[in-house]
Amino acid sequence: MEAFFNRIRLMDKPVLYTCLSPALLNLYNVKNSIVVVIDILRATSTIATALYNGAKAVIPVDSVEKCMHLGKNMECITAGERDGKVAEGLQYGNSSFEYPRDFIEGKILVLTTTNGTRLLHMALTKGATEIITGSFLNLSAVCQHLVKMKTNVILACAGWKDKINIEDSLFAGAVVANIKSHFEMNCDASHIAESLYEQAKDNMFEFLKSNDASHYHRLTDFGLEKDIHHCLTEDLANVLPYYVDERLVVGKL
Amino acid sequence: MEAFFNRIRLMDKPVLYTCLSPALLNLYNVKNSIVVVIDILRATSTIATALYNGAKAVIPVDSVEKCMHLGKNMECITAGERDGKVAEGLQYGNSSFEYPRDFIEGKILVLTTTNGTRLLHMALTKGATEIITGSFLNLSAVCQHLVKMKTNVILACAGWKDKINIEDSLFAGAVVANIKSHFEMNCDASHIAESLYEQAKDNMFEFLKSNDASHYHRLTDFGLEKDIHHCLTEDLANVLPYYVDERLVVGKL
Repeated sequence: MEAFFNRIRLMDKPVLYTCLSPALLNLYNVKNSIVVVIDILRATSTIATALYNGAKAVIPVDSVEKCMHLGKNMECITAGERDGKVAEGLQYGNSSFEYPRDFIEGKILVLTTTNGTRLLHMALTKGATEIITGSFLNLSAVCQHLVKMKTNVILACAGWKDKINIEDSLFAGAVVANIKSHFEMNCDASHIAESLYEQAKDNMFEFLKSNDASHYHRLTDFGLEKDIHHCLTEDLANVLPYYVDERLVVGKL
Repeated sequence: MEAFFNRIRLMDKPVLYTCLSPALLNLYNVKNSIVVVIDILRATSTIATALYNGAKAVIPVDSVEKCMHLGKNMECITAGERDGKVAEGLQYGNSSFEYPRDFIEGKILVLTTTNGTRLLHMALTKGATEIITGSFLNLSAVCQHLVKMKTNVILACAGWKDKINIEDSLFAGAVVANIKSHFEMNCDASHIAESLYEQAKDNMFEFLKSNDASHYHRLTDFGLEKDIHHCLTEDLANVLPYYVDERLVVGKL
């Protein structure tokens, strides 16, 4: 009888999946799920920072052209990088450090990123119940929200041009480690991500470095070690970026 | 000057990639690579066992119908399971234990599997330089061959219906751990797989069990714990299954 009730309890829980690459998103039932878009270096870290520091909204767009177009037609800050430099025609870059409160408060940031924005639009097209963005900077807000919502969840890693990357997988693992008791899991990718996080959590920066993470190299080549350290620190910008009306705003926890 | 020579040495090495799902294979340059097809539970384990025990060849096919068709037209043993039972119309199942030397020696085994065979045919269509199959049962043979060949390598995991699974990732990690010094690696998936293997290697069976691996459940539901233990044991059937003329035969190391 106890086994019976345990089974009932198990079935009552929503399910949690981890999708390690945008190219795998079609394998999951996006329609009935909250999708957490994860692009640690650096889109979703910058989004959390800007919103935490009072930005009215962040509008993610997938090209420099769209970013410039919005910049001409509304009052906003345009930002985005290509090859490690502020893209031609835009004003600012992708670093959290460019968006302190005294600069970004009350403003709209139009941010062009490639992997993260594309994934967000995929989740939208597939009819996700809700889309939020996750980064170590707002880990607790994300976890708290997911537990409260009691809805199926897909942790969706942006990766790099559809390839799996370490830092997005690590964040998915951190979420799994924090909230798994509230969910049913039948997902090897979630276990792989959690296992990775457990191995790395005491010094994620060193883990990325010693494992030769491709993105670590891409960024340190541009001298952005400080940025990486920042993006790996938990809860420095603990808000819930929530997608509504084509923009990310601070959502209720 | 030393740095210069180190760089030259680095550039001389072939590259090693891990592809954790068949749905990601198109991201890799299959054409100039040896593809190692990995389907630990249980296709590539059974293939290694049958060849080790003297099978003349293993012909992997992707449907029960094709398997039956070949069975009618040539002298061979037909094998394959669906839902944990020998498929209707075929003679044997997917377990290594069904293929001892006194049964399989000198015979041709036509084996229908879904994930592994599909992946093998994908690699073939994309023009892989060479296709071999890997399992823990023939880990050393695979590693020895890859080091000797000095060619680019893709460790290709079959997964389960395109989803990533733990046991195939573990084997990729085992190969990475063994041969990485001979290759250049700029591949986060390889590091993730290696990290997983390092964490699991002392007791992979317990690791699969405690991490609730989906395939572990699928098989233990059918009472196949012994099979899983076998498939996780290194070098019990240490041959090199090599694909040529639509069949896998024992290749030269």
